[in-house]
Amino acid sequence: MIAELISVGTELLLGNIVNTNAAYLSKQCATLGLSVYYQTTVGDNEVRLQEALKQALGRADLVILTGGLGPTQDDLTKEVVAKTIGETLVTDIRTKEYIVQYFKNKGINQIPENNMRQAQIIDGSTVFDNEWGTAPGLIIVTKKGKRIILLPGPPNEMEPMFEKYIIPYVMNITGNTIYSGVVKLCGIPESQVEMMILDLIEAQTNPTIATYANCGEVHIRVTAKAKDEEEAKSLVNPIVTELKLRFKDAVYTTEEEETLEDVVVKLLQKHELTVVTAESCTGGMVASRIVNVAGASNVLKESFITYSNKAKRKYLDVNKETLKKYTAVSEKTAKEMAKGAALNTDCDTSISITGLAGPDGGTDETPVGTVFIGCYVKDKTVVERHQFQGNRLKVRQQATTFALDLLRRCVIAQYD
Amino acid sequence: MIAELISVGTELLLGNIVNTNAAYLSKQCATLGLSVYYQTTVGDNEVRLQEALKQALGRADLVILTGGLGPTQDDLTKEVVAKTIGETLVTDIRTKEYIVQYFKNKGINQIPENNMRQAQIIDGSTVFDNEWGTAPGLIIVTKKGKRIILLPGPPNEMEPMFEKYIIPYVMNITGNTIYSGVVKLCGIPESQVEMMILDLIEAQTNPTIATYANCGEVHIRVTAKAKDEEEAKSLVNPIVTELKLRFKDAVYTTEEEETLEDVVVKLLQKHELTVVTAESCTGGMVASRIVNVAGASNVLKESFITYSNKAKRKYLDVNKETLKKYTAVSEKTAKEMAKGAALNTDCDTSISITGLAGPDGGTDETPVGTVFIGCYVKDKTVVERHQFQGNRLKVRQQATTFALDLLRRCVIAQYD
Repeated sequence: MIAELISVGTELLLGNIVNTNAAYLSKQCATLGLSVYYQTTVGDNEVRLQEALKQALGRADLVILTGGLGPTQDDLTKEVVAKTIGETLVTDIRTKEYIVQYFKNKGINQIPENNMRQAQIIDGSTVFDNEWGTAPGLIIVTKKGKRIILLPGPPNEMEPMFEKYIIPYVMNITGNTIYSGVVKLCGIPESQVEMMILDLIEAQTNPTIATYANCGEVHIRVTAKAKDEEEAKSLVNPIVTELKLRFKDAVYTTEEEETLEDVVVKLLQKHELTVVTAESCTGGMVASRIVNVAGASNVLKESFITYSNKAKRKYLDVNKETLKKYTAVSEKTAKEMAKGAALNTDCDTSISITGLAGPDGGTDETPVGTVFIGCYVKDKTVVERHQFQGNRLKVRQQATTFALDLLRRCVIAQYD
Repeated sequence: MIAELISVGTELLLGNIVNTNAAYLSKQCATLGLSVYYQTTVGDNEVRLQEALKQALGRADLVILTGGLGPTQDDLTKEVVAKTIGETLVTDIRTKEYIVQYFKNKGINQIPENNMRQAQIIDGSTVFDNEWGTAPGLIIVTKKGKRIILLPGPPNEMEPMFEKYIIPYVMNITGNTIYSGVVKLCGIPESQVEMMILDLIEAQTNPTIATYANCGEVHIRVTAKAKDEEEAKSLVNPIVTELKLRFKDAVYTTEEEETLEDVVVKLLQKHELTVVTAESCTGGMVASRIVNVAGASNVLKESFITYSNKAKRKYLDVNKETLKKYTAVSEKTAKEMAKGAALNTDCDTSISITGLAGPDGGTDETPVGTVFIGCYVKDKTVVERHQFQGNRLKVRQQATTFALDLLRRCVIAQYD
């Protein structure tokens, strides 16, 4: 079954808001076994919306429109859909009462006239209450058997409405399902990852294999279509196993929702280890990612941001001579930072980062983007030198990812 | 002049990534005076991409495609564009050399064969070096006089390329301009901001006024269309002045590119002040945002992540009795953290944060989302209590923004 998405709203065409609805709905459609081949965005314009809708109805079995259901004059999605499929608008008594109640609950008895427009529905449509706002959702089946779903634009109304009403509706009309697995890895550039699995990608039909790079990580997604989840899983799982074999310990998880920091915290918890970070150019980003894991307080008690040389000496006992002879951005400084952080805090492991995030300050020997990452685990300190590309923030983000991954690999090597 | 956007990538249709490129490009087009009536997203599929391109060429004068220029097999935007407009692909010597150099800089001499595909260009096109990655950007004028721009998909490559090469190109071919001003403020909820300027919004035609909320900040954008920039500015500037009057010191900047942390660092530099952060639930996010400002080393030398009570005592001299009697998430702890951080490091100012980011651990008195923010400036410590909504990350992000803003306001009050 083919679905198509139309996002309605001039604010999208002006770039005033990012269209997260399209990503959300596409993901939901994939999970529901619906193929999405096009996403279209149009403004609150009758002629162009109608053109987009006609085209979508010509290509898809199900068209989902978001936006343009609000109370204001330029919201005209309902009107245009009705006109396009030859239906009329009628007032829905139940929705009218619903809106009256919604405003009463907010302590408003005089309902804005505009909001009463939201009680109008396309004749013959199924109405879904909007428990999160005022614009109801609608489903209408056209005379040609195509289905059109209208949803409100604000994600905090659209998403719960989709999950409560649209998912059961769609599952009822399709049998198909899509299942996908993911292999997340770190430390290998995307192009190299692709080269290493070219044979698998080229042989792909069902399941399909695709790679996505993000700030030092590469995620490989394996997606299969089948009649039911069990069959789809039996297509996906052997490929996931093969990918794990090929990328070995670069793979940090195959769990959909698990992040690199989740894995690191879990690993430290498993071995009852604590960690301290000593951060220069990342300025707290590594600690911040660790702290974002609920329950991180077991493993991270304290950390240092040592941006100046003085702070590196004061809190981490970095040798004055080291800083003078090798500079702050050097293997030796990173090593002393990692060791000093762990010893001074009695932590079991530590991460140190010192680098040149730019935009200025680079030399031939140490260009902008050079970052040294140190990791102390069980009396052993490892330092890696990296050369990252991108602006200041990108360099820092990549350094953060690689630091977390280095800690993961060091702990596994020493404890697992 | 009418522009149309086509985003290419199956990952977009699967909802694996959010299409921020469409919003970015739409905004840029609006600023350049280009009207965007449609945004389309298609997968890495020859037939459907060609259909979308043909349609866009039929409706617009300028078509911007993003994505599908990568090194892998499914990247086929160049091939499809060439085929659609009856051109061929040729190897561009300069781009080839550029890619060789790019990998050399990364210390890689054996260039992946896939990456050499990126040196292919559409015959007759203008090539823009990709200083941020490997896929070059292209502009080609069709036989019918339509313009097609091809840009890489990753935002960190596409955005700087657009700003460096495409903006001057487009400004050269159009006359029209849109000018917009922005007023950025902190500490007032978006709905309240809207109420305070309802009269201005309702009277809007040209310029238009719109508000955007983001993690504790509200940005008000004022946009005017005119023949030239001067005329547009004369429409925008009086409104910006009026907004500054209404929101007073909640406004932290009216500069397009200036962030809250930029303002804070500038302010500290102006008064030759240093700052230290003492962060519990934010785990380094405040320091990290400060460090993201190039040149922050003048103002931030060191900072503490004190997640455990023990660390709060050790580095910040928080009283054992305070922690016992009032708990770690309390006004008194925040106050002692701020004071201790500044005194122990000889810094002129400090920020402390202690809160409950969740998801667990809330009580009736101190529910999840409670955050105390302390600020020490000139022997005076101020503490604010906030109740933030949202998940763990959202709570931490809002706390970070409010902390930076509190420091800004305290420094202004004491020094400006």
